[in-house]
Amino acid sequence: MLTVLQIDFPFTGPFGAEMQQAMQPLAESINQEPGLIWKIWTENAATQEAGGVYLFSDAITAQNYLDMHSARLTASGVSGIRAKLFSVNTPLSLTCKGPIQ
Amino acid sequence: MLTVLQIDFPFTGPFGAEMQQAMQPLAESINQEPGLIWKIWTENAATQEAGGVYLFSDAITAQNYLDMHSARLTASGVSGIRAKLFSVNTPLSLTCKGPIQ
Repeated sequence: MLTVLQIDFPFTGPFGAEMQQAMQPLAESINQEPGLIWKIWTENAATQEAGGVYLFSDAITAQNYLDMHSARLTASGVSGIRAKLFSVNTPLSLTCKGPIQ
Repeated sequence: MLTVLQIDFPFTGPFGAEMQQAMQPLAESINQEPGLIWKIWTENAATQEAGGVYLFSDAITAQNYLDMHSARLTASGVSGIRAKLFSVNTPLSLTCKGPIQ
């Protein structure tokens, strides 16, 4: 069952192009994670937050990734991680052009 | 600037196919909202939550939608709405096959 993972956390930067430069190797490694279909990288310099929205092929790979990524974020000094897992309502999402196929 | 809107809230159902049946007219109306590129409908029967992840073309249409949708949810009896707006880091998202084009 397709699973959405939302993660966000307090983040003081870098944002934008500097974030891209700092995180490109991490993005390439995330692209190889089991079950990952895609990730959108999210950032908000005004609220000092960042995170990601992910689509995984199933709940188990999403939960495994969340466990690993939370530990990695914590080890890098991030605290206050907010994460939620959801199933996708497929027909409603397809009505709204949701990118789930 | 592409903007992600995350919304989730406590929800006691219906989920799955029954949610689809109840919400199909709403999904069709959301598909017509200014600036909307797509919405993924999210649900979690185990945690009794539901919501959505949206991509909008810009921050203004996303904020306008959030204001309208929050009022609509509140009027329908929903409380405890959690909503966040984020910019998209485009190059990192494209590295991870993020559906932003």
